[in-house]
Amino acid sequence: MSTKGLDYESLNENVKNTQYAIRGELYLRALELQAQGKEIILTNVGNPHALGQKPITFPRQVVALCQAPFLMDDPNVGVLFPADAIARAKHYLSMTSGGLGAYCNGGGLLGIRKEVAEFIEKRDGYPSDPELIYLTDGASKGVMQILQTIIRGQGDGILVPVPQYPLYSAATSLFGGSLVPYYLEETANWGLDIQNLHQSVSEASAKGITVRAMVIINPGNPTGQCLSESSLKEILQFCNQENLVLLGDEVYQQNVYQEERPFISAKKVLMDMGPPMSKQVQLVSFHSVSKGYWGECGQRGGYFELTNIPPQTIDEIYKIASISLTNCTGQIFLGIMVNPPKPGDISYDGFLRESNAILGSLGKRARIMTKGFNSCRNVVCNSTEGAMYSFPQIRLPPKAVEAAKRAGKVPDVFYCLKLLEATGISTVPGSGFGQKDGVFHLRTTILAAEEDMHGIMASLKKFNDEFMEQYEDTTEAILGLNE
Amino acid sequence: MSTKGLDYESLNENVKNTQYAIRGELYLRALELQAQGKEIILTNVGNPHALGQKPITFPRQVVALCQAPFLMDDPNVGVLFPADAIARAKHYLSMTSGGLGAYCNGGGLLGIRKEVAEFIEKRDGYPSDPELIYLTDGASKGVMQILQTIIRGQGDGILVPVPQYPLYSAATSLFGGSLVPYYLEETANWGLDIQNLHQSVSEASAKGITVRAMVIINPGNPTGQCLSESSLKEILQFCNQENLVLLGDEVYQQNVYQEERPFISAKKVLMDMGPPMSKQVQLVSFHSVSKGYWGECGQRGGYFELTNIPPQTIDEIYKIASISLTNCTGQIFLGIMVNPPKPGDISYDGFLRESNAILGSLGKRARIMTKGFNSCRNVVCNSTEGAMYSFPQIRLPPKAVEAAKRAGKVPDVFYCLKLLEATGISTVPGSGFGQKDGVFHLRTTILAAEEDMHGIMASLKKFNDEFMEQYEDTTEAILGLNE
Repeated sequence: MSTKGLDYESLNENVKNTQYAIRGELYLRALELQAQGKEIILTNVGNPHALGQKPITFPRQVVALCQAPFLMDDPNVGVLFPADAIARAKHYLSMTSGGLGAYCNGGGLLGIRKEVAEFIEKRDGYPSDPELIYLTDGASKGVMQILQTIIRGQGDGILVPVPQYPLYSAATSLFGGSLVPYYLEETANWGLDIQNLHQSVSEASAKGITVRAMVIINPGNPTGQCLSESSLKEILQFCNQENLVLLGDEVYQQNVYQEERPFISAKKVLMDMGPPMSKQVQLVSFHSVSKGYWGECGQRGGYFELTNIPPQTIDEIYKIASISLTNCTGQIFLGIMVNPPKPGDISYDGFLRESNAILGSLGKRARIMTKGFNSCRNVVCNSTEGAMYSFPQIRLPPKAVEAAKRAGKVPDVFYCLKLLEATGISTVPGSGFGQKDGVFHLRTTILAAEEDMHGIMASLKKFNDEFMEQYEDTTEAILGLNE
Repeated sequence: MSTKGLDYESLNENVKNTQYAIRGELYLRALELQAQGKEIILTNVGNPHALGQKPITFPRQVVALCQAPFLMDDPNVGVLFPADAIARAKHYLSMTSGGLGAYCNGGGLLGIRKEVAEFIEKRDGYPSDPELIYLTDGASKGVMQILQTIIRGQGDGILVPVPQYPLYSAATSLFGGSLVPYYLEETANWGLDIQNLHQSVSEASAKGITVRAMVIINPGNPTGQCLSESSLKEILQFCNQENLVLLGDEVYQQNVYQEERPFISAKKVLMDMGPPMSKQVQLVSFHSVSKGYWGECGQRGGYFELTNIPPQTIDEIYKIASISLTNCTGQIFLGIMVNPPKPGDISYDGFLRESNAILGSLGKRARIMTKGFNSCRNVVCNSTEGAMYSFPQIRLPPKAVEAAKRAGKVPDVFYCLKLLEATGISTVPGSGFGQKDGVFHLRTTILAAEEDMHGIMASLKKFNDEFMEQYEDTTEAILGLNE
């Protein structure tokens, strides 16, 4: 009997070939241990609310009122809601064709697209056109739509940083394209070397792959670096020379914890470069309410902005966006994120207090973590300049690598599993993000509660230093007594 | 200079070949006229809230509280919210890992998947497994995911009813598959003829296309029919013989306006048939909060249930769903839709009153519309048994067809444009849904306000009868005086 449409053997090979380590061995083991009653610290996903971060109050008030507009007809509404939240809810409802229950059109609510454009203009000092802004269910839906639009088959390559957030490799495989990695330089604070980029393109070309787009993640995930203006310039020149679309994942633009290298958008750098470059390089920039310091991951709000994209292509993007429309609630969050309460508004002080508390604490936690990792034997860790991750390099002794092999594990998986068993700290092995051969990392988020952070790092150091002692070339390790 | 990645010439051909008439000529002209100040009745999209339908209160209260859980710490919360809405909000929040701002996992919130399973069990009288239910951003995201999983290339065909809701043709093109149409029989109340189905499969096969799945829309969009138990049995037997996955679009299951042919799910009929059939046919059933009588389109809540799908395939479905997660708010709406207030609950009476008012009015409007169309010269219209559309056949006289040709228009587009200009009624020409050659239709929704419905139908009849008089074979038409 022949196979059926949803038998595994007959599925779309691109679906099967897609790698997405969200349910990797580490995560599954963490869930098992949790079910057995062990206390697990889930630092594996950038999901702040799941680690106890409270939502910012004002946007939640506005969205609650938008969802239940009949509350605003109740004379008692002021008992529970401030006047500026009520005014803002009316403002957003007036943009809809029938409240949050009505479909928004393919690009999202025009009023909110205008607010996003104003935010971008203010941020970059250059005009932004609401018609070139598309509101999406989180940044990831937008990334997937753009990659689907670009990729025609295996001959199309997408340049993706390594280490990288696995969305890009997953979406490239899913749409049948080829991943073309470029390595970030750990010793150069995760910067990139343009020579390497050219080489990646040539190597791909030799294999019959035409690179058509390049992804940058700024600030970096999992690497935490902020790209300098000069790096961004080099990248844009490179894209111009090689005729590549630049996909700028800028979802961590509000998560920056140092002043030396503030966030600069790819669009601003491109516009600063002036014509002909500023009119030539095709750029798609992504942002989201999931990241930033709001961490509203479950709301699925995001946008992309199109720069130098021809109108005929925009019609195609609109058409595909129209097939499956974006949720309205996420759009409201996005509107408030780009247009927060202003000085003088009733909710301003509270909003500022909440925002500063979260951002300040994230900065402190980032520093505790970097310092903690660097105090560990055989561990080196760049600073988390931005985003919400720490990505230390774990210099595993040869004996540990051998022990991992004997256990049938990738060495960093071996280390992370032992860390999990010993301490309950659930991390993601660096191999899930891609890394150079023989170099090992892990990723943790900086999201555990601030008051727990010193304890977590002490527990991690104790485990690590014992692990290193066990596997370093001492008599014990040679005799293999402690395995 | 070579083309860039987002130049139109170099885009993914599947994207370009995808047809989605959402911004068709009719809609654009309606917007133009609206901008010029003409009153337009937008009956072109099934978007109830945009036509003034008020949201049902209870789910909106629950979602508002889930979004602003701090309200429940306020002693005054009872001033604005009933106790059962508060209890329900706590119930759903307890299912999340950190409220609506935390990511839900790939399948959606397990607690809500359990409520969906209970709903299905109660509806069909057969067990349903929460692990086989996936919560999605509206039904359309689920349809797209399943089609992407099935389709490997142009050699894979999807059997789609004609006339059909264009999601299916669009998604099939987008993922590079081949659309294999089967015609619904207007004279048999839009029923289907199994002989035709076999023929469609053979014809496809002769062209090198293997049909791998079949779509049914029950109740029908745009055709409004409810499939009988015997039709569903025939369809399931056909899918079994031909080794097809059945995709059951059942998003209108709560929109049924007659008692002769109630909604029956494909899953119930399959289970009723018993083994071996009930263990063999691969079925994916879709439902949504956008349709039903709630009409919460903008919230993007939906689910699909997998029946007889192998575990390895389910792992693949989970993996792909994990790349881009579902919004939480839509999941809460779905939970309440499948588990509404019960007799004895504080909100029960109000919920029932609102529900009955909407459903009762939709039924009345459906009848007014069918009757109105059938009173028009050269128009015949099947009853809207379910869903939210009317799909009359417009028997255009040969002179009207010729006039359309001279104007460079498809004949039904010609008629609908003239209708729009004369009356402000914005419809969708039948050609947008596919139809047999030389047969013309239009689709309207039954969603205009009940009090306006008689006026709309009178205005439509006046236009239609004058149009027919103009183009029928009278001296005037022969002389072409009135064109």
